[in-house]
Formats: sequence, C-alpha cells, structure tokens
Amino acid sequence: MDEFDFINKVKPTRNFSKQVMVGIGDDAAVYQPTNSYNQVVCVDTMVEGVHFLKNLSSPQDIGYKALAVNISDIAAMGALPLYYLVSIAIPSTWTEDELIQIYEGMEELSSTYKMDLIGGDTVSTSDKLVITVTVIGEAESHVQTLRNKAEDRDIVFVTGTIGDSSAGLSILLEEIENIHPTIQNYLVNRHKRPIAQVEAGQIIAELERASLNDISDGLASELNELVEASKLGMIINEEHIPVSKELRSMQDVYDIKKWILYGGEDFELVGTTSEREWDKLKQACTDRNITITKIGVVTNQHHNVLLKNRNGQMIQLKKSGYNHFNNK
Amino acid sequence: MDEFDFINKVKPTRNFSKQVMVGIGDDAAVYQPTNSYNQVVCVDTMVEGVHFLKNLSSPQDIGYKALAVNISDIAAMGALPLYYLVSIAIPSTWTEDELIQIYEGMEELSSTYKMDLIGGDTVSTSDKLVITVTVIGEAESHVQTLRNKAEDRDIVFVTGTIGDSSAGLSILLEEIENIHPTIQNYLVNRHKRPIAQVEAGQIIAELERASLNDISDGLASELNELVEASKLGMIINEEHIPVSKELRSMQDVYDIKKWILYGGEDFELVGTTSEREWDKLKQACTDRNITITKIGVVTNQHHNVLLKNRNGQMIQLKKSGYNHFNNK
Repeated sequence: MDEFDFINKVKPTRNFSKQVMVGIGDDAAVYQPTNSYNQVVCVDTMVEGVHFLKNLSSPQDIGYKALAVNISDIAAMGALPLYYLVSIAIPSTWTEDELIQIYEGMEELSSTYKMDLIGGDTVSTSDKLVITVTVIGEAESHVQTLRNKAEDRDIVFVTGTIGDSSAGLSILLEEIENIHPTIQNYLVNRHKRPIAQVEAGQIIAELERASLNDISDGLASELNELVEASKLGMIINEEHIPVSKELRSMQDVYDIKKWILYGGEDFELVGTTSEREWDKLKQACTDRNITITKIGVVTNQHHNVLLKNRNGQMIQLKKSGYNHFNNK
Repeated sequence: MDEFDFINKVKPTRNFSKQVMVGIGDDAAVYQPTNSYNQVVCVDTMVEGVHFLKNLSSPQDIGYKALAVNISDIAAMGALPLYYLVSIAIPSTWTEDELIQIYEGMEELSSTYKMDLIGGDTVSTSDKLVITVTVIGEAESHVQTLRNKAEDRDIVFVTGTIGDSSAGLSILLEEIENIHPTIQNYLVNRHKRPIAQVEAGQIIAELERASLNDISDGLASELNELVEASKLGMIINEEHIPVSKELRSMQDVYDIKKWILYGGEDFELVGTTSEREWDKLKQACTDRNITITKIGVVTNQHHNVLLKNRNGQMIQLKKSGYNHFNNK
C-alpha cells in the first residue's frame, strides 16, 4: 500500500463548509473561523485491543466510534462540531479495504453533522492499530458549559439512559449470556454506535448557567469531576437515574448497577443548572424529543457524591469508573 | 500510574496566551481566534520502532521532535504556531518519569514559541508508544503559501542545508562509522532536534506569491509535490543544493547524494517565488541570518523534476523519498 494513494482514496471530494480554505493535501489545513465564535478543540485516541477488538467490531463501527467520542466532547462544551483530522498508525494485519471502511464509518457520522475531514497522518506500526481523531468545533463566545459552573441547590440532570453501553460491552465480551436477541442488539449497538448529544448540548448552552460533562468514564466518575471542579457536593437519587427498558429487563439476573454507575461510554450528557433554568431546559428538550431527567441536587453541605439508594440509605459514590491506566 | 494524576503532572501551570479560555481539564479546550486570522491545523504521529527507537533517543528528544515536525508544517503554511494537543498511547515498558520527560521535551520547544499545551488524551497500549501531536496556528487571511502556487520561471529555493538529518540517522543506526565526533554530534543533533523554519515561513508569507513545502519526506519528494500540485516542471542544479560542511566532509567515503535527495526530515522549507520577489526574499533572510539558497527554476516545458548534475547531465528526480508505507 502506498501512503499517497491511500490518502487520495479517503480524501473527501468536496467540503461542506465554505470556510475551509485548504483541506487535505497541503502541509496543514486552513479554515476561516466564524466571526466572534470561540474555537473548541479535543483529541481522543482509540487503541486496538484496549478500546476495541478487531474480531468484535467492524471497521465502520471503529471509525464511527472514534469520531463519535470526540463529537461528544464538543457537545459537552455546548459547541457545534465542524472539522476533524484523523491520524492512524497501521499494522500490516489491516488491509487497505478495512482501513477505507474505517474512514467510511467516520464519514457516515460526520456527514450527518456536515463536518469536514480536513487533515491527518497515516503511518505504519508493528503491532496494534491506533486511531487518533482531533475535532474542532465552534461556540458563541458567551457559551461556557464548564465542569466548575455548578452552584448550591442546582438540579443534577442526565440525558438519555445510562449503563447501556457497558452492558453491551459485557455482551460483546461474552461475560454474560442468554440475553434476548432484541435486547442484545440494542445494547451492543449503544456500545458500538454511541450518539453524541450535540443538540442537547446546544440547548444547555443557551441557559443562563450550566455545568456539563459527557459520560465517557462512567456516571460516578463524571459526577465526581463536576463536584471536584465546582468544590461542592451532590445527592443523587438512585431511583431517578434513567435506565432503558432493555437494561432494566436484565436486573433480576445481573447486577445492572455496576454498569449504570461505573460503566461509562454512554456519551450522554450530565450536568447541573439552577432550579429556575431546569424547567426551561426540561421543556426545550421535551419539545425536541430529547430525554432529560433530574437525578439529584447540588449541595454545599459536603464535597462528596452521595447516592440515596432504594432503601433510603446514603452511600458515597467514588470516582471508580473506567480509568484506562488502572484498567490494564 | 493513574491517568488523572499523570495529567496533573504534565498540565501547564499557566498559559502564554490570554486567548485560551479553557485549557486542559475540561471536555475540550476553548480559545478565542485572532480577529481576521485564519486557523491553520495539522497532526502528526510518531511510532516507537518506526519513527524513533527508545534506545537511541532520549524521551526529551522524542517529545521535542514530535512537536517540531508539526511546527514545521505550520511554518510551511506561513503561519505562527500557537496551541498544541498531545495524545499518547503508552505501553507498560515506559515509566512515568520517561513520559514526563517526553512532555518536558515538548515544553522546552513550545516555550520558545510561547505555544500553549491546551489538551490531549492518555491511553494505554500493549506494544509500542504512539505519540500524536495536533498543532494549531494562525495566519493572516491573505496568506496562502500553498504547494500549487508555483508559476513558470519561478526561482526554486531552500532554507538551511539539506541531507544532514538522514546522515545523522545513518550514524544513529550504525549504518556508517568512523565519523569524527564533532561531525557526528552535529548530524545526529540535526536528526533528533530539527529546527522548524517558522521565521523564514513568516518572511515568505509576506511575498506577493510563493509556493511552499517543508522537507519531511526528502527533497526529491517535496519538489515533485510542488510540480504535481502546480502542474509544471523544474530544473534543479545539483551543485547549488546547500550542503553543510559537516556532510560535505564525508563525500569521499560515503554516497552523500542519497541523503541530500531522498533523506528527508531536515524540516527546512522548499518553495518557489517570482524572480522579482526572490531578491526581496534573499535580502530579508540575509538581514535575519537565515540561510536561503536558489537551487533551480520552474518551467512550463515539462512536468518533471530534472536534476542537472555536476557533469551537466539531466536526470529525472522521482518521488522516491521516504514513504512510511513502502518503507516497512
């Protein structure tokens, strides 16, 4: 395989945005930022054998997810994703067709947001495929949905349902079995094809004030990040955490709580806003068919995340979600 | 090693730029672009065993170079580098101290440009260290030092001296020996610590028109990229290609020509501009102690890169420089 030929095969034939001055094919990409908008940038790496297994995910799924996790970070900043760059380290165990399919998976997702692939790098490696995606978005300059914006008495909310993705991973890894095919498909798809909450992020960004995080490392971990950054505490009501009917159906046989609290990779949004703004947010989400649920309140009485369980007991939720280093 | 602890250790304590609104520590970085400037973005990946060997380069050198190669791409667009993000896939064979030294090598270089580290990702991998750096720069909106800007009768120029870096690599790999220590140090340092030509790029960007490339893949390859993009040809005078006295001193024993023409990784700039602008460019570089040399001319008579050698013979220079895929 020739590097230059390969780049020509995955290079887009046109750009959605007229603000792209130079796309793939020169030393660097050049774009014109939107007047008075801030630039929002993130990068995430996925490693074969750590973040995905070649025998369990299609190349399209891998590409899709590598981009989705970055779009989710942009969504959590209340920004719109616009451009992406892809750097890929390729071992000889991957065929050119498979690599092209990775880019097709990204293209499938990016086109729904009218995002442009504007740059990247392709290099060889001896062992595992490593894919690094950089995404650039824009937000109006007043938008600040940061982790440290929580205040005392804020409502804690999450979008969508929590725990599906890691239950899907357990199915993929055959850690659990005898799951009904419909439920299995739903959960595995939630793991392989997470949907970043860009529209919800946009609605939240219009509030007077909101703290916000995306759920990549597990709900417990993300809630702890919010309280640490804001130097406050939270009380979360376990009964109110939204769980899909598919995951709920497994609760008699499996401990679904570990997936809900520590699973991660749901790529839903979790955040806080004032009681007054919460009603506005709830209504705006309902109007657009976005599920959003109040799961607790912020408090200045302590600096922990406390979970009130079904028996009314309070337990401390520690940041023991997914951590790539400890997980080795 | 804990991911969160590690990030805190490499996170900068302050930012140079007041335009950084959110640095490391939230879902994505946020910065305010300079009014009426274009954003210039590139990404490059370096893989252990392919782009560097742990026993031959210090962690500082590896970090320095991973950033330098990206700054060079920004320089080739006539832009100023401002921000960078680092994504690193880490095998257990690397200690936390070594990883911190990689970031120190980057910090050493970035501080000379007052660049800010604004984001990144740290993940584990099973085999080889993979480091991916994204650099963002800015250029005034009229700046367009693209590869396709060459015109008939343009002067072809290069900055600095060519071939040193790959001669240095050959020394490192012990492909050649008995080189005088002073020469050896000079050449190896040119390989490990390339200096991106940001200032020269800025001067070139001020010309009425210029085509420009940085020399990452070898002079022959970069010249071919310029003629392909511009749909023209070139005649290069071999005698005029600037070669350091250190490399020149080896010419009786070694075939230095292969390093000069196909070696790559010099990270000098190669480009073209009109005869009239060339005098201006030459003067501006001389004033700032930047070496810049005319090595040939652009022609519309053919679509090749022809090299006129010392015997007056014309040979076609093909794009057979370093190509990561073929090099496997």
